Amino acid sequence: MADDKALTPRATDFSAWYNEVIMRAQLADYSPVRGCMVIRPNGYAIWEQMQRALDDMFKEHGVQNAYFPLFIPMSFFSKEAEHVEGFAPELAVVTHGGGKELDEPLAIRPTSETIIYSMYAKWIQSYRDLPMLMNQWCNVVRWEMRTRLFLRTAEFLWQEGHTAHVSETEAEEFTLTILKTYRRFAEEWMAMPVLTGRKTDSERFAGALRTYCIESLMQDNKALQAGTSHNLGQNFAKAFEVTYQNDKGGLDYVWNTSWGVSTRLVGALVMTHGDDAGIITPPRLAQYQAVIVPIYKSDEERTTVLGAADQVFRELKTGGIRVHLDAREGMKPGAKYYEWEGRGVPLRLEIGPRDVAAGHVMLARRTGGKKTPFATNGLAHALRIEIDAMQQDLLDAARTRREQNSIRGVNKETFLEFIARDGGFAYGGWCGDTVCEADIKEQTKATIRCLPDEEFRSPTPPTKCMWCNRPAVAEAVWAKAY
Amino acid sequence: MADDKALTPRATDFSAWYNEVIMRAQLADYSPVRGCMVIRPNGYAIWEQMQRALDDMFKEHGVQNAYFPLFIPMSFFSKEAEHVEGFAPELAVVTHGGGKELDEPLAIRPTSETIIYSMYAKWIQSYRDLPMLMNQWCNVVRWEMRTRLFLRTAEFLWQEGHTAHVSETEAEEFTLTILKTYRRFAEEWMAMPVLTGRKTDSERFAGALRTYCIESLMQDNKALQAGTSHNLGQNFAKAFEVTYQNDKGGLDYVWNTSWGVSTRLVGALVMTHGDDAGIITPPRLAQYQAVIVPIYKSDEERTTVLGAADQVFRELKTGGIRVHLDAREGMKPGAKYYEWEGRGVPLRLEIGPRDVAAGHVMLARRTGGKKTPFATNGLAHALRIEIDAMQQDLLDAARTRREQNSIRGVNKETFLEFIARDGGFAYGGWCGDTVCEADIKEQTKATIRCLPDEEFRSPTPPTKCMWCNRPAVAEAVWAKAY
Repeated sequence: MADDKALTPRATDFSAWYNEVIMRAQLADYSPVRGCMVIRPNGYAIWEQMQRALDDMFKEHGVQNAYFPLFIPMSFFSKEAEHVEGFAPELAVVTHGGGKELDEPLAIRPTSETIIYSMYAKWIQSYRDLPMLMNQWCNVVRWEMRTRLFLRTAEFLWQEGHTAHVSETEAEEFTLTILKTYRRFAEEWMAMPVLTGRKTDSERFAGALRTYCIESLMQDNKALQAGTSHNLGQNFAKAFEVTYQNDKGGLDYVWNTSWGVSTRLVGALVMTHGDDAGIITPPRLAQYQAVIVPIYKSDEERTTVLGAADQVFRELKTGGIRVHLDAREGMKPGAKYYEWEGRGVPLRLEIGPRDVAAGHVMLARRTGGKKTPFATNGLAHALRIEIDAMQQDLLDAARTRREQNSIRGVNKETFLEFIARDGGFAYGGWCGDTVCEADIKEQTKATIRCLPDEEFRSPTPPTKCMWCNRPAVAEAVWAKAY
Repeated sequence: MADDKALTPRATDFSAWYNEVIMRAQLADYSPVRGCMVIRPNGYAIWEQMQRALDDMFKEHGVQNAYFPLFIPMSFFSKEAEHVEGFAPELAVVTHGGGKELDEPLAIRPTSETIIYSMYAKWIQSYRDLPMLMNQWCNVVRWEMRTRLFLRTAEFLWQEGHTAHVSETEAEEFTLTILKTYRRFAEEWMAMPVLTGRKTDSERFAGALRTYCIESLMQDNKALQAGTSHNLGQNFAKAFEVTYQNDKGGLDYVWNTSWGVSTRLVGALVMTHGDDAGIITPPRLAQYQAVIVPIYKSDEERTTVLGAADQVFRELKTGGIRVHLDAREGMKPGAKYYEWEGRGVPLRLEIGPRDVAAGHVMLARRTGGKKTPFATNGLAHALRIEIDAMQQDLLDAARTRREQNSIRGVNKETFLEFIARDGGFAYGGWCGDTVCEADIKEQTKATIRCLPDEEFRSPTPPTKCMWCNRPAVAEAVWAKAY
């Protein structure tokens, strides 16, 4: 795709649009290694903002960061029966090191429950050591056959939290605390509304008791699982002998949780807010919340305009705005607008000689609408208000879109019709039978995204399974998914 | 080692002391995977502080973060002759993925020149794209036979910067800019004085034109290479066809630099400042700069003291001090002192009923000396002064120790005597012959740490090689090294 060619419109081919947006904005690129991507500075800057925000949230809950080895002995996987079944087919395996064949092959971590709980077994002695709350920011590898930039790659970056508790209740509470944290992050930082709920057994994490998730609806009406939080029960504690002396002197197994979000969130952000001109970065996560483009013709104008632009830059920076002054020479303002638009910078400030004379800048919003003059006096304060408003508007717009693309109380007929025209979230009753679940998936490719939490359930609970008409055990949300 | 046993003194066995300090302070632990360590929260917190400081410094120089794949096709290494020779013996190799044998084995990155410059070849078209300045924070793997916690492990965390420039001059300047940045970080943040200088050809990075380094002297008088900055010339540009159109329309190869520091710095910090009670963390890098220990007996005292302690905690936090209130129940103050001392917390604030009544706290400094009362009124300000003073004192003490353990103007006799009694940095003339260099290494285990920069050279330049008496081409610094 040449840089000056318009993007494929979303309505024409959403998938082509997605790839083009990422290439145009230089968020990522394909690498010479099969299934692996390169995250370019523009994409990594978004991930850094995400990391900073999430890390602060985790630390508020007493979680500490640590780092565990990339390599996991193959034998570790076999210790938890479901876990090995779930992950063995996706492992990348190191067989040689330092020029020699290894005695035991080492897997590259696809997730670190096994290695982390083998260490917890050593560190945890007594109830005084609990809860143990750790997180690591790292790379993981899952050998995927069909990859998509950010959404599904053989290697990806993520955080994985791992905790140990004295009781099932406490573990369950922590699992849900993190789920709420993920939701808060998605809504307040990414301006991305999510459903929270529980996964069915067939979509559960391999080795977990219960898996909870945040699920978001993309603009093509496909669902994206944006984060998961698992109550692991005592499965790994028993497999790795993670025991502690309780306050009565007896020996108990701990209760574990694990939870993660990944660079997949960058893809989610693109598909939630992007338009036919490129990405729209929610201001709270944008590397640059505002970019200043100076406009001049003569040398005299240049001096005046650049001087004023530089002063605006300094004042905004001091005022806590992440701002960039694009003073590149030999590039027309229009070309700069186009580039920053494609990169999704929320606010663009244009300054020409007449603006300097009038003591204002012209503000263009990435979300559209007429350009408006803003006085340079008090600009930082005014932009903070703009930023908050845009952040809220993006969330509201995404929520409205999701609700417009959701249907409640489906029966088999309305469900099939909804899914056939690529509808979004379909709410209906479910009998609880995995046979029904599998049958629906086979016929429609739609899966149960979650059994939604109370807040998201329909006012009138469904009484029958929308597929087989037997009594419903829960309300479920179906959608095609990434 | 039981937790309540005294550490082996440094003078008795420095190596045992080092390992015990790390275990006692819970900085790291051995993992079930050969050669790999686990970085525990206390150690990771120091690394996070280091990352934050370095990252800000890199960004000041216009460097942007990115992320490149963990895997590198084996064929990439062969493209630069010296590079493959240097790294092939240390590679960990993935031969299987997703249950199948791979067509081409993949190396786990030991460093990322090859994969990064293969991408630069795609991204760089014209001189307008230069300089390209990127950095990544990641894990790398080098299959080491003899490992030491933090200092030498099969997997370690680091940052690796990679840049491309239009000219050799600009590349050389950037190489030295980073070297200065590393020095500034070592001195201002780690309170660790370093020599800067150039490596000899035999110690040069595999594939570089010139390697520069910062070298520090540990308390056992062994040198530690704490960071390197390489001018790569056009070696990788030619191997990976990284060309650009110059401003006259012709095609030129770019000039590259690469540079890195790793979690090895945490080990350097321990060995620079630790004492027989444990580590001493320089306050600018400490997770907690001050810890508050409340002292009480009766319930009534408890209420008063904890109330006052909490107020001090809030005021210090508001005042920008990284502070922790250790309000654990059922643990004696003495046990808390011991723990925080071992963890190297710079300042300890003790608050008992009499202190509350007197409106002060008792301050104990990790660096020793008498406890002194500090008024709670204006405490944050007073502690900021303490912190700055301690940071400076640590640097001064380390520099004095280094200078006391350095010898200048050695000849063969004084050199042998100095090295035999485990002396530190030996400055002397060198003929420039690798035969002499190798001979010295074989006989004494001492290596040329660097050809020091002007600032560090002796006032009277040596005229003869201290080993062979032929004319000297440079002054060199020898030491045994980690």
